[in-house]
Amino acid sequence: MQILIKNGTVVTALDEYKADLLIENEKIVAIGSSIEKPVNEVVDAEGLYVLPGGVDQHTHFNFTFKTATVRGYETSNAAIAGGTTTIVDFANQEIGKSLKESIEKYNTHKVAPKAMCDYSFHGVVFDPNDALFAEIPRLPEIGVSSLKLFMAYKGMPYHCDDDSVFKALLASKEAGVTIMVHAENADLIDVLQKQCLAKGEVDPIYHAVSRPPIVETECTQRAIALSEAAGAPLFVVHVTAKGAMEAIRDAYARGIPAFGETCTHYLVLDTDNLAKPDFEGAKYVCSPALRSKEHRDALWAAVQKGWLKCVSSDHCGFDWADQKHIGRGDFTSIPNGAPGLQDRLKVLWTYGVAKGKIS
Amino acid sequence: MQILIKNGTVVTALDEYKADLLIENEKIVAIGSSIEKPVNEVVDAEGLYVLPGGVDQHTHFNFTFKTATVRGYETSNAAIAGGTTTIVDFANQEIGKSLKESIEKYNTHKVAPKAMCDYSFHGVVFDPNDALFAEIPRLPEIGVSSLKLFMAYKGMPYHCDDDSVFKALLASKEAGVTIMVHAENADLIDVLQKQCLAKGEVDPIYHAVSRPPIVETECTQRAIALSEAAGAPLFVVHVTAKGAMEAIRDAYARGIPAFGETCTHYLVLDTDNLAKPDFEGAKYVCSPALRSKEHRDALWAAVQKGWLKCVSSDHCGFDWADQKHIGRGDFTSIPNGAPGLQDRLKVLWTYGVAKGKIS
Amino acid sequence: MQILIKNGTVVTALDEYKADLLIENEKIVAIGSSIEKPVNEVVDAEGLYVLPGGVDQHTHFNFTFKTATVRGYETSNAAIAGGTTTIVDFANQEIGKSLKESIEKYNTHKVAPKAMCDYSFHGVVFDPNDALFAEIPRLPEIGVSSLKLFMAYKGMPYHCDDDSVFKALLASKEAGVTIMVHAENADLIDVLQKQCLAKGEVDPIYHAVSRPPIVETECTQRAIALSEAAGAPLFVVHVTAKGAMEAIRDAYARGIPAFGETCTHYLVLDTDNLAKPDFEGAKYVCSPALRSKEHRDALWAAVQKGWLKCVSSDHCGFDWADQKHIGRGDFTSIPNGAPGLQDRLKVLWTYGVAKGKIS
Amino acid sequence: MQILIKNGTVVTALDEYKADLLIENEKIVAIGSSIEKPVNEVVDAEGLYVLPGGVDQHTHFNFTFKTATVRGYETSNAAIAGGTTTIVDFANQEIGKSLKESIEKYNTHKVAPKAMCDYSFHGVVFDPNDALFAEIPRLPEIGVSSLKLFMAYKGMPYHCDDDSVFKALLASKEAGVTIMVHAENADLIDVLQKQCLAKGEVDPIYHAVSRPPIVETECTQRAIALSEAAGAPLFVVHVTAKGAMEAIRDAYARGIPAFGETCTHYLVLDTDNLAKPDFEGAKYVCSPALRSKEHRDALWAAVQKGWLKCVSSDHCGFDWADQKHIGRGDFTSIPNGAPGLQDRLKVLWTYGVAKGKIS
Ligand SMILES: [Zn+2]
Ligand SMILES: [Zn+2]
Ligand SMILES: [Zn+2]
Ligand SMILES: [Zn+2]
Repeated sequence: MQILIKNGTVVTALDEYKADLLIENEKIVAIGSSIEKPVNEVVDAEGLYVLPGGVDQHTHFNFTFKTATVRGYETSNAAIAGGTTTIVDFANQEIGKSLKESIEKYNTHKVAPKAMCDYSFHGVVFDPNDALFAEIPRLPEIGVSSLKLFMAYKGMPYHCDDDSVFKALLASKEAGVTIMVHAENADLIDVLQKQCLAKGEVDPIYHAVSRPPIVETECTQRAIALSEAAGAPLFVVHVTAKGAMEAIRDAYARGIPAFGETCTHYLVLDTDNLAKPDFEGAKYVCSPALRSKEHRDALWAAVQKGWLKCVSSDHCGFDWADQKHIGRGDFTSIPNGAPGLQDRLKVLWTYGVAKGKIS
Repeated sequence: MQILIKNGTVVTALDEYKADLLIENEKIVAIGSSIEKPVNEVVDAEGLYVLPGGVDQHTHFNFTFKTATVRGYETSNAAIAGGTTTIVDFANQEIGKSLKESIEKYNTHKVAPKAMCDYSFHGVVFDPNDALFAEIPRLPEIGVSSLKLFMAYKGMPYHCDDDSVFKALLASKEAGVTIMVHAENADLIDVLQKQCLAKGEVDPIYHAVSRPPIVETECTQRAIALSEAAGAPLFVVHVTAKGAMEAIRDAYARGIPAFGETCTHYLVLDTDNLAKPDFEGAKYVCSPALRSKEHRDALWAAVQKGWLKCVSSDHCGFDWADQKHIGRGDFTSIPNGAPGLQDRLKVLWTYGVAKGKIS
Repeated sequence: MQILIKNGTVVTALDEYKADLLIENEKIVAIGSSIEKPVNEVVDAEGLYVLPGGVDQHTHFNFTFKTATVRGYETSNAAIAGGTTTIVDFANQEIGKSLKESIEKYNTHKVAPKAMCDYSFHGVVFDPNDALFAEIPRLPEIGVSSLKLFMAYKGMPYHCDDDSVFKALLASKEAGVTIMVHAENADLIDVLQKQCLAKGEVDPIYHAVSRPPIVETECTQRAIALSEAAGAPLFVVHVTAKGAMEAIRDAYARGIPAFGETCTHYLVLDTDNLAKPDFEGAKYVCSPALRSKEHRDALWAAVQKGWLKCVSSDHCGFDWADQKHIGRGDFTSIPNGAPGLQDRLKVLWTYGVAKGKIS
Repeated sequence: MQILIKNGTVVTALDEYKADLLIENEKIVAIGSSIEKPVNEVVDAEGLYVLPGGVDQHTHFNFTFKTATVRGYETSNAAIAGGTTTIVDFANQEIGKSLKESIEKYNTHKVAPKAMCDYSFHGVVFDPNDALFAEIPRLPEIGVSSLKLFMAYKGMPYHCDDDSVFKALLASKEAGVTIMVHAENADLIDVLQKQCLAKGEVDPIYHAVSRPPIVETECTQRAIALSEAAGAPLFVVHVTAKGAMEAIRDAYARGIPAFGETCTHYLVLDTDNLAKPDFEGAKYVCSPALRSKEHRDALWAAVQKGWLKCVSSDHCGFDWADQKHIGRGDFTSIPNGAPGLQDRLKVLWTYGVAKGKIS
């Protein structure tokens, strides 16, 4: 099977130039000017960009919040529709099981039969115990080289205290596994949430009130300190607060291998969305919470300057009518997460490249 | 009763000048040149400095580590012998009791009958619960305006997680009570101590190995974040790490009311003392641990420049033969603390003023 | 001659307390409670503060701008009327003469016969040459321990290029003389002034437009670098820009002996004053120019936190009708300077202490 | 003319992969796997990297120091021998002439007839005057989009004071011309050089003594302030001091378009080279001077982290016997500069990539 894409503008990491591409059996075999060859199919890309397929390195096709479970790989065509050909999906450990067993089971039953795009996995710790820490160095054997821990959910089984994060970092170090953290101070959130509920503050906007930027900034600083103490790399997922971004930037400048990403919605939405009437704010409930303009501007600058390494979608497909409404009358019960896989590249183009914020 | 001190060099906050002092009934009633008056006693202070009595704002005459209890107010003459006339002593809450009851009982039975110097109290939280947080605004009624929480001791009843520290800060805010913290990351210490013991590293030097500077720097940053989130002042006791000092300095510069002290031994001793043979290192086991020269230099600069507000002794009178030796063969069992009340001003003079490090 | 001040509230660097003061022959000979003694005069200070006399360390009773010369010591009673008993006045070198000769002549003819307050002098360089640099170490012989250089006036004889500032710093170093600088980038101001005039922008507000904060911040950073290169202390007069203040603060924190002051008007006035109609803005023309609120807030914080060492008046008594009007139609010809000696302490009390900005 | 390069490892900005390259008439027309085509020449690159030709954006084939003139384009084959196919050469304005005239004359007579590699030009200001500033916006017409000014040479006709740099920045702004500066404080160097010579310190090592790092750091900070005041981009050539690099990094982080490069020799040589006996140190005399290890380490980190944008050679071909020896007995007369064009990529590979400092 041969396809020839003609007259397009090829975009690489450094340049863009007019060229033709010849594809044989799903591999690019030639890039050149005026390729002439009999092929099965010719695509005329005159006036169009020909880009490498996008990689979205943060999706959830497998996540349960209280009683609500996100939609799975039957919706993974959203990736292709949005120019993303590969996703790195978060595959959760099952409590009481090893990561290997959990991920293989997930792949076999939920992913492989249905996936409509390329995929690989980050592991996610749900049961932080010594067996899990001992398993970390063997993760590369199953093709997994990154592992996420939650520092944000006081009282939940998957919450990781500092000792768990530190042990995971120590275990990851030699094995070339990267520890990722969801960094928000669980204790602070817990007190603030209870204060809100006690005052009858139950609407979606209180999701942001009870998770102010300092909750994320503090925990990011702490995760960096643990990374420094362990001498192991750290990747902070969904960075949203200016202070958190600066902590990562400054740590990296001091020589600590600390990195981070942000997500599309933190670049274009803000706390006003959470304040929408008629519970519509619930659509925008994700963690960390949406921020104010000052933080958004800082995130765009961070993406442009390379202080954050990528922009992912944190895709998390909850249903509005049945699932988001669980939290009506109690913002702490609104399933956290929003879809974004399909629109990620378009949002970056329209609000970033076209407005001159990134290039 | 009248005393006349003649010919001395009076030292105040700003100046020094030759003058006579007239004291009637324990109060200075006149400072002047050539006071002539018939009095009960004349002291010739020719060639001597006449200074206000020192205040040591951090002592422990009431502290139990495992089975060892420090010596009490029967040794408080050490203050007077060292030029310190007032101490602010740490008075512990008894578990299950209110601070008021605990402090009054302590004063009645252990302090008032024996004290040989002026004194007042900081409270110390040993049982962080809602009743305690509710009591905080009433502490000024018993003459207590500061309250210490431990962030360093994982698994101990008096250990305070971030939610307790945050609740105490919120409660303290309106009442004019200052929250003090012993800031070391309890989780990190716990993992590092167990690593040491598992490897048979039991000597006093491992006290420092398992409590590296980052343990203190991280926790100080976190306490500052909690203070910022609560909008309440914070005082960090016994600051020893350069990074912790800088965190306090920079927070204050940003407008956060964060303050700290250091202690005499952190200015003149270092980790070499912990490495002394024949268990002599145990004499120098206190928490945080002694640091290296780089940190010591930073602390002197911080005292000179006003970034740390005072130098206290953290006096804690354990006995060498009977008490420090409990920890022979297991550094985690060495009672933490060392005496210093009597020598504090002399150490500051000899190693600070006389060497030009402070003025 | 004996005076007894009774019942006042004595304020010292650290405390305030009720006391009586006995003064004999212009010296305080006793401070005490209830002094009873037959004296020449008794003053009842009930309900009043008794403070040490103020020191204003930056006045100009001797300054000529183009054809306008400020009013001299016949107006020095303004000090006493405002609670300032001592001034440190800027005494200019005469071109072609030594500082010693210039200052002695100034004192003999213009100061000693008329002064109504205590005074001493800073020297001011008007003719930077090798003889002047050679004289610096001998300044203490005539009671002068500080010397100001202008870095701000391109093309004027008294303008000092970096080599002059550096040579002065080198010469000052061993002698215990402090080099002071008026720090604004002369080249930048020159270009910006000419741009304004070329566009017909002649009103007083263009004084600020042509001397933006970066002009001061850059030159302050440069002066600090020269101080660091020479290993000699530096004092920056009339600091007004946030960035300049931060440069001094940060240099001091790094161990460089760099210090600065600000002046009363920079704390309470701003660029709006320069924009007043009918040439009234000319009353507020002084250099550096008045700043915006952001800078004012930063200066108050700097005074409160000790990052700037004092608040002086930069008193410079030009006459409104005859002298300020020279610059009508050309802001570069408006005599630079404003009076402030009499009101300095009152301004600090009313806008600082009473508003809680300083203590 | 067709060339086929087979079996090489093609290296692009992001990847490396095995591929063949087909070149027709000096242009790459196809990159692909297993290209089979009859061509004029086949090159087997098995086991070799196929990289884009290097660009050295800082060379001097036209520079005169006192009586010594560097070797010209007859030696430009050094570029090709070292894997560099394009140089951007510094083309000097002739005093009294326009840049256009100067550069065209240079190209016609000295470059075009002899060049053995691709080239383009940066302009260099030698006669800063109003005609020159007026010409800046027209430089793109002759294919020049960057212009260098010297801030380092007090008393030389080509030295630019701050007003010239500021005027050049203002003129460059709209035209898309980038102002480049050689940033060292000319006044400080002048005083320090004279001090050295007055003490009989004439050997090459005093080149470094009289140009300490602060000379460069200060001037870099100043150039950044001028760039900020003008709102125009700035490029600092041959950054060597840690402080200068940090000033550029921090300015860029604050949103100021300030950039810089370093050069090969600053990454691998240090002040010890200047101290070599028998005048051999003179080989290493270039400006800024070689630095100590601390600075070298900081420069490697800056290249790796993208804080400095490229590594050029600052190639400047003086002859050892005839030209460097002019400065025997007076280090200020040693021609400044050293060759490096041929070895640039090899040095970066051997000391950077192979040692893990850059990738
Ligand atoms: Zn996620
Ligand atoms: Zn203590
Ligand atoms: Zn002045
Ligand atoms: Zn060069």
